[in-house]
Amino acid sequence: MIKETISDAVAQITRTCHETEVFITEETDLHLPNRGVIIGVIKDLRRVIFPGYFGSENIASTMPDYFLGNTMTEVFEALREQVETAFVYKNKCRDNCGEIHEKATAICERFISRLPYIQQMLLMDVQAGLDGDPAAGSKEDIIFSYPGLFAIYVYRIAHELYVQKVPYIPRIMTEYAHGKTGIDINSGAVIGKYFFIDHGTGIVVGETTCIGDHVKLYQGVTLGALSTRKGQALSGVKRHPTIGSDVTIYANATILGGDTVIGEHSVIGGNTFITESVPPHTRVSLKAPEHSFVADEHQDSLWDECK
Amino acid sequence: MIKETISDAVAQITRTCHETEVFITEETDLHLPNRGVIIGVIKDLRRVIFPGYFGSENIASTMPDYFLGNTMTEVFEALREQVETAFVYKNKCRDNCGEIHEKATAICERFISRLPYIQQMLLMDVQAGLDGDPAAGSKEDIIFSYPGLFAIYVYRIAHELYVQKVPYIPRIMTEYAHGKTGIDINSGAVIGKYFFIDHGTGIVVGETTCIGDHVKLYQGVTLGALSTRKGQALSGVKRHPTIGSDVTIYANATILGGDTVIGEHSVIGGNTFITESVPPHTRVSLKAPEHSFVADEHQDSLWDECK
Amino acid sequence: MIKETISDAVAQITRTCHETEVFITEETDLHLPNRGVIIGVIKDLRRVIFPGYFGSENIASTMPDYFLGNTMTEVFEALREQVETAFVYKNKCRDNCGEIHEKATAICERFISRLPYIQQMLLMDVQAGLDGDPAAGSKEDIIFSYPGLFAIYVYRIAHELYVQKVPYIPRIMTEYAHGKTGIDINSGAVIGKYFFIDHGTGIVVGETTCIGDHVKLYQGVTLGALSTRKGQALSGVKRHPTIGSDVTIYANATILGGDTVIGEHSVIGGNTFITESVPPHTRVSLKAPEHSFVADEHQDSLWDECK
Repeated sequence: MIKETISDAVAQITRTCHETEVFITEETDLHLPNRGVIIGVIKDLRRVIFPGYFGSENIASTMPDYFLGNTMTEVFEALREQVETAFVYKNKCRDNCGEIHEKATAICERFISRLPYIQQMLLMDVQAGLDGDPAAGSKEDIIFSYPGLFAIYVYRIAHELYVQKVPYIPRIMTEYAHGKTGIDINSGAVIGKYFFIDHGTGIVVGETTCIGDHVKLYQGVTLGALSTRKGQALSGVKRHPTIGSDVTIYANATILGGDTVIGEHSVIGGNTFITESVPPHTRVSLKAPEHSFVADEHQDSLWDECK
Repeated sequence: MIKETISDAVAQITRTCHETEVFITEETDLHLPNRGVIIGVIKDLRRVIFPGYFGSENIASTMPDYFLGNTMTEVFEALREQVETAFVYKNKCRDNCGEIHEKATAICERFISRLPYIQQMLLMDVQAGLDGDPAAGSKEDIIFSYPGLFAIYVYRIAHELYVQKVPYIPRIMTEYAHGKTGIDINSGAVIGKYFFIDHGTGIVVGETTCIGDHVKLYQGVTLGALSTRKGQALSGVKRHPTIGSDVTIYANATILGGDTVIGEHSVIGGNTFITESVPPHTRVSLKAPEHSFVADEHQDSLWDECK
Repeated sequence: MIKETISDAVAQITRTCHETEVFITEETDLHLPNRGVIIGVIKDLRRVIFPGYFGSENIASTMPDYFLGNTMTEVFEALREQVETAFVYKNKCRDNCGEIHEKATAICERFISRLPYIQQMLLMDVQAGLDGDPAAGSKEDIIFSYPGLFAIYVYRIAHELYVQKVPYIPRIMTEYAHGKTGIDINSGAVIGKYFFIDHGTGIVVGETTCIGDHVKLYQGVTLGALSTRKGQALSGVKRHPTIGSDVTIYANATILGGDTVIGEHSVIGGNTFITESVPPHTRVSLKAPEHSFVADEHQDSLWDECK
């Protein structure tokens, strides 16, 4: 009886697969990029950018040049193959894909050349963490343990591929960081220097967000879009806010919309919901909450009882 | 000296274990289900429902029938053993557990027969994602990378076991998804078609929640219960809200209580706290925040200074 | 051409490393603690404190004394080495580090002696979960699957090392739990008995927070500090709130500041932003939101349209 049940389920699922274009049932020469390889690139580059912190420290410290050169070469090869796979899949290319190979090579070479710049940016982000968090203790703690720095690292890597229009891979990278940290920074966002994320869980930074320098975000902050059912028709349109330099945004503030600009030096209070622009040097705060008496600590519903 | 310290700690912990019924120190024939096996089931079924996306794509594409049939057979066997283990443990059954074996077989057969339906539902969820998110790019991106879809997938699987009253396993499944995505959907919730979760970190959907069709939730949304200290006495009572069809709920909205109904086509603004029903076609929004001037960007406390 | 690109990148990164003191390029005898070993300690101790739940249950149940004694001995050795490594690195100690070895031994012995107390505390936390959550089903579900209990477990372990001023390791431990659960409890916080975290994603409990007994936190609650750019100058200062006993804090409430005290038996509503003290027996609730009519369910922007 279970045989028939399985047989029926197989038949139905197979039928659905043939009717649904997104499933890869026959085109055996096309593949999506390999998530494991891409995560490997993220881990390897972290050892290049923060030598001595992750993996086999001794190798890094005894022969740093060799270690760096060798790792970058491996990253280049691995990433080039994935970038090529992504373009081939996206374009459903089957023959004469030579142009795609050239393109993938050029993209990855440019990517490697940007690594020193990314390292400089990340060192400024570490400094912002030390200045912004009395609990940090040291730069070592921030590099070694802070999820905010890890999410920013992955964003800065993925952004280099996003600007070169590589499909699939930037999203795989940022969702890896999202899964690890709860911080979801779309690789399309543009983010300035000395960016600090404290705690970070629940943060969302949308694809067309612009963020200035010395900006500090707390956990649960959304820089998002207004909801739509237009879907792909809005792809590419500026839908997420612009945050000026020296802005601090407290926990769980939700700031939405492509026309929304938060002026420089402003402070956005926690738990606010903002869909319009805020001038520079402005504090925005939630209206004070109401207080009332709670008579009995053993009420059935702690909320209903005290209304 | 450390020997004595360890010896004392062992003695105290052993004593506590004997006084505490929840620890399994002697009943060697009873086990909780194996989390690793259950996670394996989740991973295998994902390859069945989304052929070509996860794991060894070539096997899936060359011989889809064989691959599907074989994987479902393995899932059936693995799950049946875990379901049986769960019932045996729950009932503290030691002999004559034959009835439980029959029951586990029937439950898992029914579960397998539901897989084509689950696939159909998930394809509608993918469509909702494409319609609702201009940043999605493609259905491939959603299936391959979106944590929201992964959480919905695990919920739809776990829900089939919940309705058949399997203990422990639905919770193990949804907490696995929760750990991966930050999205906590209780397997008891009832959720309609075209469900879309954007970003998703921090979402909570409680056990007795009902959700209609075409509902869209953003990160940080809670569909929860009012707090109680009655504990298990309220088990089974409707404690979580009902969400009508075509409702959109923005980031960090908190909606609580079993009598709370959000009417169809309503839009719930971000960061609201709602414990009463909302009529259909209603927009609910937080009162506008207050603005004030921030004199100095180098204040000690960015918040206190500007009050 | 790619060779030159890599060569240039290596040269620039090497230069930056030499100019930046935080990178470990030459001091080959100094290491940061090993994250993998520390995570191993967390996993092993979980089997000591909750026998029969994690790992090879049979060993635990057949010979519990041997299992407990052996595992504690291994934990002691592994942790002592990591604690020593942490102090050596922190003090940049190269010779005559014998004193540090003695200190690490004493710290780890004291740590082992505290395990029975930690177990007692955690059993009370499990009870609080059962009393506070009708969906829990059983203590087994809570121990086996609840992320809140896991985060509290790791906090109670890490706190013992924090109070003995061990560098790096408490942070590595709590960030491990943060990554797994989305719950970020700083190891410096002081937390009473019967602590319950429901769902938990997005919770932040800062370093100088004090929490009484029978406190219940929902997902997204922040017990945090007011933002500062004074950084390390504020290290050690009380910057986070004090929560009295029997307080319930609903989802996404943000409570900030070292002078902020929430009085006993108070109930803090969801999505509030609180920077001042609240008397005992007080309910604090967000101002009621505004309602307005939504004409058309197919609007472009679900939010703008309905204003």
